[in-house]
Amino acid sequence: MFDEQHLMARSANFRPLTPLDLLERTVEVHGARPAVAWHDRTWDYTEFREIVARMAHWLKAQGVGRGDVVSVMLTNRPEMLAAHFAVPALGAVLNALNTRLAGQEIAYILDHAGSKLVLCETRTAPALEGVAPPVTTLCDRPGDGTGLDLFEGEAPALDWTANVTSEAQPISLNYTSGTTGRPKGVVCTHRGAYLNAIGNLTALGFTSETSYLWTLPMFHCNGWCHTWGVTAAGGLHVCLEQVDPAPILELINRHKVTHMCCAPVVLYMILDHGESVPSCRVKVMTGGAAPTPTLLAGMEKQGFDLVHGYGLTESYGPATFNDPGADTPGTVEERAALLARQGFRHYTTAGIAVVDEAGQEVPWDGQSEGEIVLRSNTVMAGYYRDPEATEAAFAGGFLHTGDVAVRHPDGQIEIRDRAKDVVISGGENISSIEVETVLHRHPDVLLAAVVAAPHEKWGETPWAFVERRRGSAMTEADLDRFCQQHLSGFKRPRRFVFGELPKTATGKIQKFLLRETAKQMVTQ
Amino acid sequence: MFDEQHLMARSANFRPLTPLDLLERTVEVHGARPAVAWHDRTWDYTEFREIVARMAHWLKAQGVGRGDVVSVMLTNRPEMLAAHFAVPALGAVLNALNTRLAGQEIAYILDHAGSKLVLCETRTAPALEGVAPPVTTLCDRPGDGTGLDLFEGEAPALDWTANVTSEAQPISLNYTSGTTGRPKGVVCTHRGAYLNAIGNLTALGFTSETSYLWTLPMFHCNGWCHTWGVTAAGGLHVCLEQVDPAPILELINRHKVTHMCCAPVVLYMILDHGESVPSCRVKVMTGGAAPTPTLLAGMEKQGFDLVHGYGLTESYGPATFNDPGADTPGTVEERAALLARQGFRHYTTAGIAVVDEAGQEVPWDGQSEGEIVLRSNTVMAGYYRDPEATEAAFAGGFLHTGDVAVRHPDGQIEIRDRAKDVVISGGENISSIEVETVLHRHPDVLLAAVVAAPHEKWGETPWAFVERRRGSAMTEADLDRFCQQHLSGFKRPRRFVFGELPKTATGKIQKFLLRETAKQMVTQ
Repeated sequence: MFDEQHLMARSANFRPLTPLDLLERTVEVHGARPAVAWHDRTWDYTEFREIVARMAHWLKAQGVGRGDVVSVMLTNRPEMLAAHFAVPALGAVLNALNTRLAGQEIAYILDHAGSKLVLCETRTAPALEGVAPPVTTLCDRPGDGTGLDLFEGEAPALDWTANVTSEAQPISLNYTSGTTGRPKGVVCTHRGAYLNAIGNLTALGFTSETSYLWTLPMFHCNGWCHTWGVTAAGGLHVCLEQVDPAPILELINRHKVTHMCCAPVVLYMILDHGESVPSCRVKVMTGGAAPTPTLLAGMEKQGFDLVHGYGLTESYGPATFNDPGADTPGTVEERAALLARQGFRHYTTAGIAVVDEAGQEVPWDGQSEGEIVLRSNTVMAGYYRDPEATEAAFAGGFLHTGDVAVRHPDGQIEIRDRAKDVVISGGENISSIEVETVLHRHPDVLLAAVVAAPHEKWGETPWAFVERRRGSAMTEADLDRFCQQHLSGFKRPRRFVFGELPKTATGKIQKFLLRETAKQMVTQ
Repeated sequence: MFDEQHLMARSANFRPLTPLDLLERTVEVHGARPAVAWHDRTWDYTEFREIVARMAHWLKAQGVGRGDVVSVMLTNRPEMLAAHFAVPALGAVLNALNTRLAGQEIAYILDHAGSKLVLCETRTAPALEGVAPPVTTLCDRPGDGTGLDLFEGEAPALDWTANVTSEAQPISLNYTSGTTGRPKGVVCTHRGAYLNAIGNLTALGFTSETSYLWTLPMFHCNGWCHTWGVTAAGGLHVCLEQVDPAPILELINRHKVTHMCCAPVVLYMILDHGESVPSCRVKVMTGGAAPTPTLLAGMEKQGFDLVHGYGLTESYGPATFNDPGADTPGTVEERAALLARQGFRHYTTAGIAVVDEAGQEVPWDGQSEGEIVLRSNTVMAGYYRDPEATEAAFAGGFLHTGDVAVRHPDGQIEIRDRAKDVVISGGENISSIEVETVLHRHPDVLLAAVVAAPHEKWGETPWAFVERRRGSAMTEADLDRFCQQHLSGFKRPRRFVFGELPKTATGKIQKFLLRETAKQMVTQ
């Protein structure tokens, strides 16, 4: 039954899922609506399609075709967004480089990815000197005569989906900076990108009225797939090149921004800047670290409504989502405690579990810790040219995240620690996140990171590395007194070190460097 | 490149798309939110899952398994919604029968579908007397002792997706009543149902705050996939058994309804009832016929915001979508003229075109007529046990809709006529819809249908069959004078016939019967 030949899939009823169809629909439905704003110019979706078509035409002329890797090292500018459509429209694969990467790492990635060519801009060009593939620099401004200008000239016809013959086809290759080891190339597919784009649109409520500010770099997991998701809704992409509070607030006011995404560190900057309040409320999806009560309360007062996402490059960005809503009852501390949880599975996440070492799901008791594992259409195809790391990541038929969490009775997930960031002192596990959350409650703490320092007697003890707020005169003794009031004895940091924290190119705190520093300070 | 073995799909990164995963997520995320309201009771999503589990368990005990067809003849009640999950969870196929079908047609469908069993309720049971498969009647009210009670007792564990091994697997078999010929069985898949559910959620903006009133029968294209879409959002399904203005308005007020769907004929009923205005604004997706200015203006005043969808059973319901928005400038007539268009492609519709007889796309000039054809993941797999009709529908690699339309310069589609409903008079094509639209502008016209009557000289002439509004004393001469003011001579109906119009079980006007009546009247 139902296996008759005439019921098999055919071109009329089966199309590979691809974000390219989403752009084509948006151009048709919202062609006259603004698509991208950059400096003083705005292009509508019909014009944006032309930029994409010019880019595809130029890439094709360079010999780019099916399966080729095109690398870009670009800030959040129209051509960066256009590359997310022009490259896959040729059946090629987009490799977006972190603009803060150093020379050797760039060379490694370009070689490992086998990049056919690299697109850059004036400010990223120096980092690409001497690399193997040909490098082309984009113009600084449309029509100014510098570099490759994709804003001007004829826009040849482009058959968007002719080169998408399978939805399992790779669309992007995103290298994870990681905290140790060589970067790994995460392969994403057209199907995964389509589903996560639609999932984000659904979760965040993007519409054609959406004005999305690009505080999040597009090179970061393809901007958590919002490059495709905001486009699917026909919303406006507001480009931002420099993540500083002043331009952020200026653009929010100018473009009546409705949504933005960023790590909490950006929000701390805005909070610390703290002078002007935008003229409209902004929904902010934050992730990478849990928002603290201080952050939640401060941002709410300034007109920002926080939601919390959790995910990895390996999960196309968001895998869980927590949006308690402004009408959640309770004090700001209570609401922050809820918001600090990673929440529930994202729309696109079919299977999520917190499992023990035997792969069994831990009880939903808010106590039992396990590792978060994922099974979903928005989990990477694997690591490019790295079967071993791929098999390790997929051991047991799930994607292993390496994150330690509990599951609350209502099903919410709450991260207790990155597996490798647990401090084990005298046989007791100390969650570095728990201690950091306490530190962040102190009004003079801007950023805090807690790591394990080696200790003869206890094995490890927790140390705190802290960035103080501007103008603060807080001492180590002040902070220790604060911790005495809020932490069990064994969890209290044995030492406080003030100074700027080392961060990766994507803004993650490099705890392995702090661990190294702590080790050296102990042995000195 | 990228064809390495370790990058191939595996269970961690490929799951068949299925609405069952959407329910599982909703139970996890919104388990305590209301799922279904029926009479004076409401069940939350955790309780609804138990109803589904009990139903699946009972069906399994009757021998239902993979590939079996389960028929239901039910009004919009909790078990009808539950069947949309319980049946596919067993790998079986749901066949929802129109509750207004007559005995012979039911027998034909049950036989053609090879139904394993039939579920019905007290009011639909008489229509099923003497059918071949075993019939089970559901209880009238939970716990009242009548019939099969799926609200009470143990709820066994249910592995939702264990029996979904391919997303191409059929999920439902919907017989189109059609206007001529035997009903055809449209086969829908898990993939198509998932994508259309998410597409509807996106287009209509369903959230967990949504309160959806079931004015649309769930047996109609699985309720345009809203059975799965509202569930995906975690919204409330408000059951409605009898489509009458009084209970509709009562339920809107009681459940703060945000959305409903129905054919314009239901809206005319509400408008004609016209006494009370609901306490909240309701977004109404209407389809099957274009909303007229009278309807738009009247409904807006009563608190209903109309959007217009177009689709077929063969396209899982909505294939195009027109939501001009309340802030569209212009008079109500101008806005109604815009809203009367079928609009743009729906979120899930990848390819839509208006083509001439050679299969070439007609110019986007608002003038050139062609047939609407579709290519999409939400186009049926085919007609069950009918290869010939399937190949005819898919000729040229598109689904042929049989609807004649123009494409406006902005890309909007506007239906000019059902292919078979064009009146050809003296070599001139007359759009019956155009004439009907004029008639609907007359304040005393409730419903009008224009068909071709045979004519010795002109070949055909248009005749109008008209239902007058309650208490109207309008004469044929009055209506003719009205048409003289608004229509070219050759388009004016040659005759006006007052009385109730014959309708199919789904509320479509049976024009073939009117054509028959006209023919008989001419020859008498």
